[in-house]
Amino acid sequence: MQKSPLAPACFPELPVVNGVTFATIAAGVRYSGRTDVMLARLITGTSIAGVFTKSTTRAAPVLDCQAKLGGDCTAPAAILVNSGNANAFTGKNGQTSVTAICDAVADACNVPVNRVFTSSTGVIGEPLAHDRIIENLQTLNNTQSADAVEAAANAIMTTDTYAKGSAQTVQIDGRIVQIVGIAKGSGMIAPDMATMLVYIFTDAVFEQTALQKLVSDTSDRTFNCITVDSDTSTSDSLLMAATGASGVNAQGNANFADALHKLMLDLSQQVVRDGEGATKLVEIAVTGAVDDSVARIHAMAIANSPLVKTAIAGEDPNWGRIVMAIGKSGAPADRDLISISFGDVNVASHGWVNPDYVEAEAAALMKKQEIKIAVDLGMGTGTATVWTCDLTHGYIEINADYRS
Amino acid sequence: MQKSPLAPACFPELPVVNGVTFATIAAGVRYSGRTDVMLARLITGTSIAGVFTKSTTRAAPVLDCQAKLGGDCTAPAAILVNSGNANAFTGKNGQTSVTAICDAVADACNVPVNRVFTSSTGVIGEPLAHDRIIENLQTLNNTQSADAVEAAANAIMTTDTYAKGSAQTVQIDGRIVQIVGIAKGSGMIAPDMATMLVYIFTDAVFEQTALQKLVSDTSDRTFNCITVDSDTSTSDSLLMAATGASGVNAQGNANFADALHKLMLDLSQQVVRDGEGATKLVEIAVTGAVDDSVARIHAMAIANSPLVKTAIAGEDPNWGRIVMAIGKSGAPADRDLISISFGDVNVASHGWVNPDYVEAEAAALMKKQEIKIAVDLGMGTGTATVWTCDLTHGYIEINADYRS
Repeated sequence: MQKSPLAPACFPELPVVNGVTFATIAAGVRYSGRTDVMLARLITGTSIAGVFTKSTTRAAPVLDCQAKLGGDCTAPAAILVNSGNANAFTGKNGQTSVTAICDAVADACNVPVNRVFTSSTGVIGEPLAHDRIIENLQTLNNTQSADAVEAAANAIMTTDTYAKGSAQTVQIDGRIVQIVGIAKGSGMIAPDMATMLVYIFTDAVFEQTALQKLVSDTSDRTFNCITVDSDTSTSDSLLMAATGASGVNAQGNANFADALHKLMLDLSQQVVRDGEGATKLVEIAVTGAVDDSVARIHAMAIANSPLVKTAIAGEDPNWGRIVMAIGKSGAPADRDLISISFGDVNVASHGWVNPDYVEAEAAALMKKQEIKIAVDLGMGTGTATVWTCDLTHGYIEINADYRS
Repeated sequence: MQKSPLAPACFPELPVVNGVTFATIAAGVRYSGRTDVMLARLITGTSIAGVFTKSTTRAAPVLDCQAKLGGDCTAPAAILVNSGNANAFTGKNGQTSVTAICDAVADACNVPVNRVFTSSTGVIGEPLAHDRIIENLQTLNNTQSADAVEAAANAIMTTDTYAKGSAQTVQIDGRIVQIVGIAKGSGMIAPDMATMLVYIFTDAVFEQTALQKLVSDTSDRTFNCITVDSDTSTSDSLLMAATGASGVNAQGNANFADALHKLMLDLSQQVVRDGEGATKLVEIAVTGAVDDSVARIHAMAIANSPLVKTAIAGEDPNWGRIVMAIGKSGAPADRDLISISFGDVNVASHGWVNPDYVEAEAAALMKKQEIKIAVDLGMGTGTATVWTCDLTHGYIEINADYRS
C-alpha cells in the first residue's frame, strides 16, 4: 500500500515517558513479515482512563476494558494490543480469548488480571488465534524498553499507510511533564466517542476520575470530530495512562489540558490524513447554529456526504451539495440565511450565490491538499469544527478488494 | 453516459390514462440537443396528492406545490417540470421563477394558478432561466397528446441513464382502471418521504384526502425504502393525479392499493437500478427487530454503509461489515443474537459464523446482479425491507466530475 499523500514527512521523535515500557513481536496472528502484537507495562500507581466505541456490536476486548476502568491503581498494569484480528462478532469465543490473554499477561508480567487491558483490531468475525499471542508473552515481557513507542505504533497498524505518533512537553511549576500518544486507523472511521485504537501516556500524576473527565472532554473536541466514511468500528478504544513517575500533579492544569488537546487533535487529524484513498484533508467549520450540537449535526452531515466528498475529490467548489447536506439532516436551518465560504472565498451569502463570487478563485483553492469549508447558518451562536477527507477511487479500490 | 447494467430491457408499453395529456420540448434550460420541459394537462375534477422532501433547504417549487395541495378540484390542472436546473438555493429568485412559470402556465392552459404544480430538477444554486420555459408554453399547450408519457419520462431525466415508467391495470366491479407512473433519479437518493421526481396518473375516482393517504402510506413502503448514497435531494417530489375519467371509484379498493404499491415499488427499484455507478441491486430485509422503525434504522444503516456497499461491489460476502453497520446506529441490537444470510446461504447465527458456512457458496451468490441480504436480530417482530446498490468507481467518476 502506497503511503498517503497527506502523510507527515516522518514519524516524530517521541520522548521517553517514565513509568511505561513497550515491546513488540511478530506473532503471526494474521499477517506475516511484520509485528502484530505490542505489550506496554505500566508502573504501580498508574491511573488509566478510556473512551470506547458506542457500537451495540462492540467487541469483547472493548467490553472487558470498560468493565475494568476505575479500579484502584495500587498495582502495576499492562496493555496488550494485537492487529490482524478484531475478535469481534466471534460469539462466546470472544470473551474466551480475552480471558485467556488477560490471564496469561497477568502471569507473565506479574500484574493483577483486573489491571490488564487488551485491544484487538483487524478482521471481524473470525476467531482470534490467542495461543499465538500467549506463547510470545514471556518474550514480550523480557524485552521491554522505554523507547520502543515507535515500534508499538507500527505493531498496531492494519490498513494504515503510516504509523501515527505525537508528543507534547508541558512545564508545570518549573518541572517537565511528557505526553506521548500513538494511534491507528484509516477506514471505518466515524467515532462516536473515541476512535480506532489510541494510547496516550504521561508521567504526570492524576487521579483516575480526573483523568477520565479530561480525556472524555478532549475526545469530544478531537477524535469525536473526525470522519472518514461514516462507518463506526466495533473496536474503537482510547486508553490514557498517567504513570505519575514525574511526581508532578497535572490535575486541573490548563497548560496540560491544552497540550493534551493539541496532541489528540494532531493524532486525530493524522487518522484522517490516512483515510482510505484520501487526497485532501478537509476542515468543516459551522457557525451560527442554534446550539453546538446542531452545528455538529450539520458539520457531520457535510463531512459524511458522498456527494460533497466526491466533489472535493474532483476539486469542484460545488456549494450546492453543501446546501443539500445541510438540508438533509433535518436539524434546524433556514435556507435563506446560509452563507458558505471555501477558504477565504465567500461563495454564497444569505441563501444565494455572492454576486462578487468568481468561481476561478474557489476552484484554485480546491486544488490544495488542505481545504477549509466554512458555513454560517445565521441563526445563533452554536459552532462545531470537524475534519474529514475526500472520497476517491482509492477508497473503492481498498474496500472492494480488502477483507477487513 | 452508458446505460446502467441493471436497466430494464426496454421502456414498458404504457396505456393511455384518460383525463391526462402530455407534451415535451427542448427549451434549452441547460442541456442542448434533448427535451427538458414537460407539460401535463389534467381534466376538471382531477384529485392531486403529493409527498415531498423533508429537506430544510428544499427548493421553491417544492414549497409552492406543498402550499397548493388539497385545494378544490372543480377546475382543470397542469403539471410543468423542467430538468437541468433545480431552482434550489436561488434566494428570492426561486419564488420569482415559480410565480412567473405558474402565471404563464395558467394563462396558456386556461387553468387557475392554484392548480398549476411545478417541479425543477438539476443543478442547485443557479438562477432558473424561466423565460426559456415560458416562451415555449403555447407550443406545449398546443401539442398535447394522450400517449406522450414516454416522451415525458425522457424530458425529466438528469443523470439518469434510462427513462423510468411503470403501469398497472386494475379491474374494479368489472371495469378497467389504469395507473401509469414515471420517475427520474439516480444520485442524491435517500428519500425522506417521496423521492426525486415521480408522477403517477390514474383515471380512477378519488377524493383528494383519500388519495393523499394512500400515496403517503405507499411511499413509506416504496420510495422511502430506497437509498443510493444517503444524500437527500432538495427537490424530491411525488405527485399523483386521479382524473376520475373512468368513472370508477377506487377509494378503499384493495386491488387498486395493491396495484399502486406494485407500480411504486417497481419505479422505486428502477431508480436504484439507475443508481450512479450501480452494478448490483441489493435488497436488505431485516427481521426480528423490537419494532418496525428499529428494523428500518438497521436496514438503512446497512444500505448506506460505504464499507458494506464497496464489499458488495467487490463481490465479497463480508458479513463483518454488516455487523459493524448494525452496531453503529445505536438502535437496539444484541450482538450475540444476530443472524445473517446472503440469499439462501446462512452465514452467521446467534452472533457468530455458522459452523456449516462455506464461503464459496456465498461468494458465488455475490457474483449475481441481484443480491439479497437477510438479517434477523432475534429480539422481536419488527421488520423492514430496503433497496440499495453497490458503491463503485462509476459513482466516483460521475460525481467527481459532474456538477449537478
